[in-house]
Amino acid sequence: MFETAELGRTVAKEEFRQAEQELHYRVLQLQQRLRKSSRSLIIIVSGVEGAGKGEVVDRLNRWLDARDVQTHAFWDETDEEKQRPRYWRYWRCLPSRGSISIMFGSWYTSPIVDLALGKSDQADLDEELNRIRSLEQTLSVDGAIILKLWFHLPKQVQKQRLESDVKVSKFKKSPLLERFSKSYDAFLSASERAIRLSDTGFAPWHIIEATDFRYRDIAMGSILVNCLQEAMDKEQEPARESFTLPGDNLDDDDLVADVLKNGTSRTTVLDRIDLGQQLNDKQYDEQLPALQEKLGQLAWQLFHQRRNTVMVFEGWDGAGKGSAIRRVTSAMDARLYRVIPIAAPSDEELAHHYLWRFWRHIPRGGHMTIYDRSWYGRVLVERVEKFASKQQWLRSYQEINEFEEQLVDHGTVLCKFWIHIDPDEQLRRFKQRQIDPRKQHKITDEDWRNREKWDAYEDAVNDLVSHTSTSRTPWTLVAGNDKKFARVQILQTICDRMSLSVS
Amino acid sequence: MFETAELGRTVAKEEFRQAEQELHYRVLQLQQRLRKSSRSLIIIVSGVEGAGKGEVVDRLNRWLDARDVQTHAFWDETDEEKQRPRYWRYWRCLPSRGSISIMFGSWYTSPIVDLALGKSDQADLDEELNRIRSLEQTLSVDGAIILKLWFHLPKQVQKQRLESDVKVSKFKKSPLLERFSKSYDAFLSASERAIRLSDTGFAPWHIIEATDFRYRDIAMGSILVNCLQEAMDKEQEPARESFTLPGDNLDDDDLVADVLKNGTSRTTVLDRIDLGQQLNDKQYDEQLPALQEKLGQLAWQLFHQRRNTVMVFEGWDGAGKGSAIRRVTSAMDARLYRVIPIAAPSDEELAHHYLWRFWRHIPRGGHMTIYDRSWYGRVLVERVEKFASKQQWLRSYQEINEFEEQLVDHGTVLCKFWIHIDPDEQLRRFKQRQIDPRKQHKITDEDWRNREKWDAYEDAVNDLVSHTSTSRTPWTLVAGNDKKFARVQILQTICDRMSLSVS
Repeated sequence: MFETAELGRTVAKEEFRQAEQELHYRVLQLQQRLRKSSRSLIIIVSGVEGAGKGEVVDRLNRWLDARDVQTHAFWDETDEEKQRPRYWRYWRCLPSRGSISIMFGSWYTSPIVDLALGKSDQADLDEELNRIRSLEQTLSVDGAIILKLWFHLPKQVQKQRLESDVKVSKFKKSPLLERFSKSYDAFLSASERAIRLSDTGFAPWHIIEATDFRYRDIAMGSILVNCLQEAMDKEQEPARESFTLPGDNLDDDDLVADVLKNGTSRTTVLDRIDLGQQLNDKQYDEQLPALQEKLGQLAWQLFHQRRNTVMVFEGWDGAGKGSAIRRVTSAMDARLYRVIPIAAPSDEELAHHYLWRFWRHIPRGGHMTIYDRSWYGRVLVERVEKFASKQQWLRSYQEINEFEEQLVDHGTVLCKFWIHIDPDEQLRRFKQRQIDPRKQHKITDEDWRNREKWDAYEDAVNDLVSHTSTSRTPWTLVAGNDKKFARVQILQTICDRMSLSVS
Repeated sequence: MFETAELGRTVAKEEFRQAEQELHYRVLQLQQRLRKSSRSLIIIVSGVEGAGKGEVVDRLNRWLDARDVQTHAFWDETDEEKQRPRYWRYWRCLPSRGSISIMFGSWYTSPIVDLALGKSDQADLDEELNRIRSLEQTLSVDGAIILKLWFHLPKQVQKQRLESDVKVSKFKKSPLLERFSKSYDAFLSASERAIRLSDTGFAPWHIIEATDFRYRDIAMGSILVNCLQEAMDKEQEPARESFTLPGDNLDDDDLVADVLKNGTSRTTVLDRIDLGQQLNDKQYDEQLPALQEKLGQLAWQLFHQRRNTVMVFEGWDGAGKGSAIRRVTSAMDARLYRVIPIAAPSDEELAHHYLWRFWRHIPRGGHMTIYDRSWYGRVLVERVEKFASKQQWLRSYQEINEFEEQLVDHGTVLCKFWIHIDPDEQLRRFKQRQIDPRKQHKITDEDWRNREKWDAYEDAVNDLVSHTSTSRTPWTLVAGNDKKFARVQILQTICDRMSLSVS
């Protein structure tokens, strides 16, 4: 989940100056429109200590016209607040229609802190998150726009900030910083769960990399502008009700790309994969058979223990999903697995919820289903090609997370692979396919068209990792330029995951 | 919650015959429209054992065109089902667009049964209900119409059915009947919680009195027809998005009244109040001061214990809310309470969620707020006068339940009164007010107008009790024709409730 916020994204000084002005201007314009609308805006500023949340709040206050903006900092409960039901303090601070509340700390703070510091357990967190979801739904259905920002720092960076001298440090040191940096891991794992459970279609989370303050503020501003823009546009031409099939009002939101035309701010989680990794024939010939043998044994062990396994293979066209899957299946007894290739849905499948076709093929105990493409199509091809409305694919992150959590709760071993290659390698493979008569059937016009949408797919993959890679349901990003390396990485991951599950 | 299903509603034989034909015809027509739409229909048939759920399912199958209907009975999990995540069995049975699934037993069955039989605790139930809410939201936002029917029998009636001979009994005896009738109370309390937690705007519960099988089936049919009719009408002219202010597409649903023009099927929970109850002057003069003294002491005790109290007064115009409140307040130190009269909302209040104005006045520890009219306006006047859309008031039951649950969780003593009088008594009081110069200001044209909507208000009150009277947040229905009796009943209830909370 936080992988996408450890990419080292930065914005150069000059670029920042221009983008900042642009954003300031747009924010003011949108605020004008908000003022006349029946919507209100709640900005929740949260994240790890040391990420500069205070600076972000300052920036927001500089950008916004102060007349309709209130900033609320939630420290320890006051005496007044303690004597009333817990949410009273938040209801007091809700913005009225047309205005904005910036919440520095929020209803998320204490559930996360309490779990991280061991004052509560996971069941308490889950219970509280249900209340929060209800509250946010109640507010959002009434017209509130809820913008939830999470500012992330890698462990090492937080540590540095803590150790650096307060005087020379750019950020204001919070009294909590020291306390939290000691329990960084516990804090992160509590945060991950809280974010995952509250990452809804009506109030999604935005995880922002906060290491570089310029990137942080530009990203924050872009998200704010997109979110407001979208809500204000909807305000004018009322959207249709929820139950519509694909195709309704759509808008794109790569304003980050818009404001910042180039530079490392466009880095995605895919850029961090070292595509130079490779294996020579000798290594491959040694490692692959050994892993395959191990996999074959593990499959039988899981069969006897009635544990089922679900594998998801996603990746670029030509990344080698098919051949990787064959290396997996050839290692196992054919009675133990099924490969489900996912193409366009059948009539019957279209007539159901999009998850229905995947539920159908969930294996019984001891068996395995390998999905060649999967439910992630919703947030990949359907998003990029606009087969699903933004509302639809945005809420599907939560639907997917709930679906996978049910699998994992049941004891299913779940492996999710994105096989990555770069555009040059893809081109090379496409050309090769065109000249190889045995492979010509594998390359279609659509493959060439998809290539043109590389950037849009990259963004979609980045968001997908950010929303659906959790400690219980992690994504494995595979370096696919070298097929041999990729296959071994995949087999290795599967064996590791299965071994953990064998009792 | 179940009070509304113990009213002794019946339908006469001849009336039944006609209504049944009418419903059969309408159901078929609506099924035609459903078939061509992008919606599907899930009918969940649940309730206490012995209520004749099997007969209801039979009736549904007789009414509906079998081509698009599937009935699914959920008994113990099969071997196939056990080996997969729990919801797999339900996903298998979901209807496709245009078709209908009747679920005899459902995702509600095992959470309720497990809690009632002590195999799980309340936290387990709550957790499962969250999953259910998510599932239902996922499905309904995708176009499924979820009709949840709960068939209720009073304890005594269930017992009779159990004891009656199988052969002469009209209903088929289920093997579970005996087991459940022994734990009727536990079963009912588990059911109440499950219903309350899943009574959402997108998939509300309908509680149906099942003692008289004719009433049961006509009520079921009417609800089905209303629900389908509404969904199909919406399908044609797409509704606006969620965040609209009052006034959008509205439709009324007193089809029960429509199909059955008279008879006891129109009985509401208000008809069960014995309005003949009265006190003579002597009794009143003895009891009232004693209760007032007790209340005064209890108020101080709760003050010292920092427990706060919230009272809600609702009732017909002229029912005597004001004078009853004065009897309560005059018993207490003026520093301990505030009376909040609720009239039309201010501009500022209108600019927030409708609950905001009530959150504002939640008392601090040890204090008391008395709401003269309340958040229930949403489901009373706003519903009847159509200031709120059906979507809005329907989802407010859950919002209200969550709000009150937070109060009770905090330790707040909550008393909710509906003061009932009959139309004749109201007329007498209105006339009296008109001739009494000191009271003329209290009677307005609106009061006379509201009188004409007596039936609509009765339905609204009945629904309100059905959706928001739970064991933790019960309604007290006050017999108000005799003011003296009403005041004593109110004071007595408050004292009882407070005494329970004094530690």
